[in-house]
Amino acid sequence: MASSTEQAGTPRRRPGGRTARVRAQVLDAVLAELGEHGYDGLTMEAVAARSGVHRATVYRRWGDIGGLLADVLDAASDDAWQPPDTGSLTGDLAALNQEIQDAMAAQPSIMAALIAASFRSEKAEHAQRRLWDDRYARCEIVVARAVERGDLPPGTDARRLLIAATAPLYHQLVLLRTAPDPDLPAHAARTAALAATAGAFTTS
Amino acid sequence: MASSTEQAGTPRRRPGGRTARVRAQVLDAVLAELGEHGYDGLTMEAVAARSGVHRATVYRRWGDIGGLLADVLDAASDDAWQPPDTGSLTGDLAALNQEIQDAMAAQPSIMAALIAASFRSEKAEHAQRRLWDDRYARCEIVVARAVERGDLPPGTDARRLLIAATAPLYHQLVLLRTAPDPDLPAHAARTAALAATAGAFTTS
Repeated sequence: MASSTEQAGTPRRRPGGRTARVRAQVLDAVLAELGEHGYDGLTMEAVAARSGVHRATVYRRWGDIGGLLADVLDAASDDAWQPPDTGSLTGDLAALNQEIQDAMAAQPSIMAALIAASFRSEKAEHAQRRLWDDRYARCEIVVARAVERGDLPPGTDARRLLIAATAPLYHQLVLLRTAPDPDLPAHAARTAALAATAGAFTTS
Repeated sequence: MASSTEQAGTPRRRPGGRTARVRAQVLDAVLAELGEHGYDGLTMEAVAARSGVHRATVYRRWGDIGGLLADVLDAASDDAWQPPDTGSLTGDLAALNQEIQDAMAAQPSIMAALIAASFRSEKAEHAQRRLWDDRYARCEIVVARAVERGDLPPGTDARRLLIAATAPLYHQLVLLRTAPDPDLPAHAARTAALAATAGAFTTS
């Protein structure tokens, strides 16, 4: 908690500074443990030990592994991430797909581990849904820009278009678990842009 | 095992009759238990009890829950399933998507439970991949028929088109976990067919 009695010269800390620091230490430890051992190897004890935060604090604040994973996912929405801005709809969607493919193909892939965890814990499932909702909402500007440039018809359903563009990536990498196809990010982007230009996502 | 000494009048049984019957009893019990209790409530003991097959037999033949789930998935490929044949590409893809949506929306959904289990067990994961591969291979005839009718350019990559058509369904229902959208099966089908007609999946 911020204190009004801090002495001059003490580095200014924002309210919740210590709380935020503890959270960052613990969430970093969750990511490291998840990357190394996967969901099955993830324990409250190991997270506490790795973070250097007292285990009683970890239990009190996060409750269980599901609570930790949900907080990792919620914390991911606090960043300043914005979708790529390449000047064209196909370019933006291809760059977005490339980000997804790179994140899924990383060794270890935190993204893949979190998606897998969302099938194990209801708290993680809800947090994963919130994160996806946040990401797709931020991406809607890609479609708005294309409409503004006159590349897409007004009334294009941004969410449907974004899902059509990114779904083949997720389907291949998460569900079908095929090896990353280097052509797929650009190909799925072109396919969705082509359909969008032809009015496939126009709701009006 | 088939016996050459079967008496006339004995109902003819195909080779492996008893083995096949035991397998059917056990796999039916796995599906019922999975539907009722999900992966977390699925135990070898409960499967044995429900199937009426001796637990020692269940352990010897399937080893563990992963082995049972893998066999359920492999058994699904033994059916005579064929993709819909409605006379048009969009119609076939829409009917296929409707089947997927209905299976995922069923209460309980065996399909959803099996997909979730594929994130829990490596054996189930591999079997789920084999099943998907089998299903997409069977669906390739949908694309071949469209090419034959002159509705699609020759050289259309059937697998890519099928994945583009079905991926939005899986992404929404399995990963984003949104409520089934009654318009999505037909919409995703139209979008993919539109892109395909424009040559988006032509490899040559």
